[in-house]
Amino acid sequence: MASTIFIQTPFQSKSLNKSLNTHFVPSFKLPVSLSFKPRTAAFSKRVHIRAGLIEPDGGKLVDLHVSKPERELKKREAASLPKVKLTPIDVQWVHVLSEGWASPLTGFMRESEFLQTLHFNSLRLDDGSFVNMSVPIVLAIDDLQKASIGESNRVALLDSDDKLIAILTDIEIYKHPKEERIARTWGTTAPGLPYVEETITNAGNWLIGGDLEVIAPIKYNDGLDRFRLSPVELRKEFERRNADAVFAFQLRNPVHNGHALLMTDTRRRLLEMGYKNPILLLHPLGGYTKADDVPLSWRMKQHEKVLEDGVLDPETTVVSIFPSPMHYAGPTEVQWHAKARINAGANFYIVGRDPAGMGHPVEKRDLYDADHGKKVLSMAPGLERLNILPFRVAAYDNTQGKMAFFDPSRAQDFLFISGTKMRTLAKNKENPPAGFMCPGGWEVLVEYYASLTPSDNDRIPQPVAA
Amino acid sequence: MASTIFIQTPFQSKSLNKSLNTHFVPSFKLPVSLSFKPRTAAFSKRVHIRAGLIEPDGGKLVDLHVSKPERELKKREAASLPKVKLTPIDVQWVHVLSEGWASPLTGFMRESEFLQTLHFNSLRLDDGSFVNMSVPIVLAIDDLQKASIGESNRVALLDSDDKLIAILTDIEIYKHPKEERIARTWGTTAPGLPYVEETITNAGNWLIGGDLEVIAPIKYNDGLDRFRLSPVELRKEFERRNADAVFAFQLRNPVHNGHALLMTDTRRRLLEMGYKNPILLLHPLGGYTKADDVPLSWRMKQHEKVLEDGVLDPETTVVSIFPSPMHYAGPTEVQWHAKARINAGANFYIVGRDPAGMGHPVEKRDLYDADHGKKVLSMAPGLERLNILPFRVAAYDNTQGKMAFFDPSRAQDFLFISGTKMRTLAKNKENPPAGFMCPGGWEVLVEYYASLTPSDNDRIPQPVAA
Repeated sequence: MASTIFIQTPFQSKSLNKSLNTHFVPSFKLPVSLSFKPRTAAFSKRVHIRAGLIEPDGGKLVDLHVSKPERELKKREAASLPKVKLTPIDVQWVHVLSEGWASPLTGFMRESEFLQTLHFNSLRLDDGSFVNMSVPIVLAIDDLQKASIGESNRVALLDSDDKLIAILTDIEIYKHPKEERIARTWGTTAPGLPYVEETITNAGNWLIGGDLEVIAPIKYNDGLDRFRLSPVELRKEFERRNADAVFAFQLRNPVHNGHALLMTDTRRRLLEMGYKNPILLLHPLGGYTKADDVPLSWRMKQHEKVLEDGVLDPETTVVSIFPSPMHYAGPTEVQWHAKARINAGANFYIVGRDPAGMGHPVEKRDLYDADHGKKVLSMAPGLERLNILPFRVAAYDNTQGKMAFFDPSRAQDFLFISGTKMRTLAKNKENPPAGFMCPGGWEVLVEYYASLTPSDNDRIPQPVAA
Repeated sequence: MASTIFIQTPFQSKSLNKSLNTHFVPSFKLPVSLSFKPRTAAFSKRVHIRAGLIEPDGGKLVDLHVSKPERELKKREAASLPKVKLTPIDVQWVHVLSEGWASPLTGFMRESEFLQTLHFNSLRLDDGSFVNMSVPIVLAIDDLQKASIGESNRVALLDSDDKLIAILTDIEIYKHPKEERIARTWGTTAPGLPYVEETITNAGNWLIGGDLEVIAPIKYNDGLDRFRLSPVELRKEFERRNADAVFAFQLRNPVHNGHALLMTDTRRRLLEMGYKNPILLLHPLGGYTKADDVPLSWRMKQHEKVLEDGVLDPETTVVSIFPSPMHYAGPTEVQWHAKARINAGANFYIVGRDPAGMGHPVEKRDLYDADHGKKVLSMAPGLERLNILPFRVAAYDNTQGKMAFFDPSRAQDFLFISGTKMRTLAKNKENPPAGFMCPGGWEVLVEYYASLTPSDNDRIPQPVAA
């Protein structure tokens, strides 16, 4: 389970050096040779530092919003179209699609994209090249909704308050093979997968794909919209800061000093590689998360404290919210997390132990092998342009009184603080070892757990895993 | 369930015309365009008829046999190596690997290949290109075997009679994630999948990968070895016959006149396209099949009758046995069936309704959507060079008294004979409508069912599906 505060990699840390290549498999990737001995491959490629940010998938960022002058026209048209009601998670996906995080996708998947995603985790473009696409971005409808759509080629998508969100056009309705979708996405069909129970089990037996015409940018009015920068806005921000490298850190948990260490250390190593101004994209996931994760609002408070306390340098850090819902689909989902960040301008992606993983919902074990995420990421079609940065192990060094990279030659000096331990401390309003997390950030955590009822507290197994 | 004798395609039969392209997506493929509207793609590519057979995957056919002079040396060495006992199905996979059906694989998969197969159904080569590889070809060992191997870099593989089959070298032992392997390969984890119960459920918790050194060609001494041509031998045969196109027909069931019709019709259409001598590779699967399939020996008898009776032209047909075991993994497995035939020299592949499919082992429905197989095949990475030929619907035409392509304008004239119907007829020694199957072939079927005990007969649901 991703319940410890350290993150391990079997890859040599020395692999992050000037022999990286920004276009092709870097040294810690596992290229398949004809003789299939990736372990013995020679790593001779060189970093080529380019001007400008990495190109989005498909060459162009998708923007699915209708222009302001068109809005009224679309609204009038929508009034006469068949209607499909969206769940809050469906709206999050409209948000994701509308801003081009899933470029070159132009709407909910039709069957051709759905099948390619399930079987190949990638989509073939007209020129024969592949873009990565590992999680199905689909919209389910039931028999009644299908009947109500009839022969219409366009449908209006409404949120739960009946507000018009978008028009879906050139639609295709096809069967929703739930069991197969779950098995191929999660590698299990065990009951208790959070996203499955929330969005698939009780969903309709049909999927409807098509191109989106989104009426207006999606807003949540929760005080956090200012953090929800689109890929276009992020790219502008990186350019404004003259970034010559952007390294993304996906997270859905509070930041502790072990995380901070590897982010600052990554920057140091990028500078050593010859980059002049590497910018960190600290990119908490803002869509659906399971009930026992720390909610977004508390995480954002905690992240702000981490910057205020100077643990991370605001000059070289952009904090923004990634609007995607969370699948908890491990090696399959980490590809989506990485691919979306390419579209936001990141050319380096930090990956840790068991990314997007969780405990098996039924058996007493992790759902995924802790190393499969980074391995799969390093081999994924369509992610060749992205440099994968595997975590080094960080743990609490008793001799220094701070988080440090684990040194196996003096293993006895290090303390690995588990998520369970962390939770117990925060619930009991005790302090972790000094230097584990900045005091301001820790206070937010204590405050969050104090705000929960005892029954809530009982079902929070792992508040600080990466 | 693949229990009817007709096979359907949603693709236009006119798509098989001179606008095909032997290098890239032919017209019935579904190329993903940036706008993701494959249905509206223009089909303007032309057939380019090349001299010589299609290149094997990776550019070169793998041959994993040790040379004759080396055999004794290897046998002596093997005596001192740790030993792993192979099941009969493991031996079938050694056979498959040894002759290069899975080129460029050089042995049982290491973890890097295993993960790419599970997640991407393809392997990336050093040059950045992909070859298809959709089913894991792996060897499972248990804790005791792993312990007995210790630090050895080589192990000896023995069959159930302790005969030395091969040496596995440069080995890698890694975890066998059974549930994930099953879910990602079959798209279900329901109990009752034949290959799973036979080879995975009770298999060890580790997989061992490595390069094979196969001591001698695998023989079964069942009177059918003469039909087991290797890819090298098949290529020689096609060249001997001056084939300028090779179209493969995978099957694991008796051939009826509906099959024969589409094979002869395919040849006619290839001639129309400008090929001078298209050769049919009639290629029954010879490895493990489930208990209720017709056994290989009876199928081979039946196929011989079909050729004797002149239903297929022996001059333009090569009958050979494909040594692979059967997964019954539908859209995932059909890619393997197609890819292996590229290595045998086929550049056209006939695909029908629900290829490699079966009934859901628990629910009352087919396990796979009947059209997904051909769709997935048409989009699969690494199969771009292969021309996919979807079946047209054949059914028994009462007005002609023979199998014919279904004409929806006079639907009432056609009779669709289900597998259940077929089985009942053969069991009761009744005859099907004249012209459904050649009399000699039908007699073999009747003889087979007569040879079964009543209890055997009760569990044979679908003897004639393609």
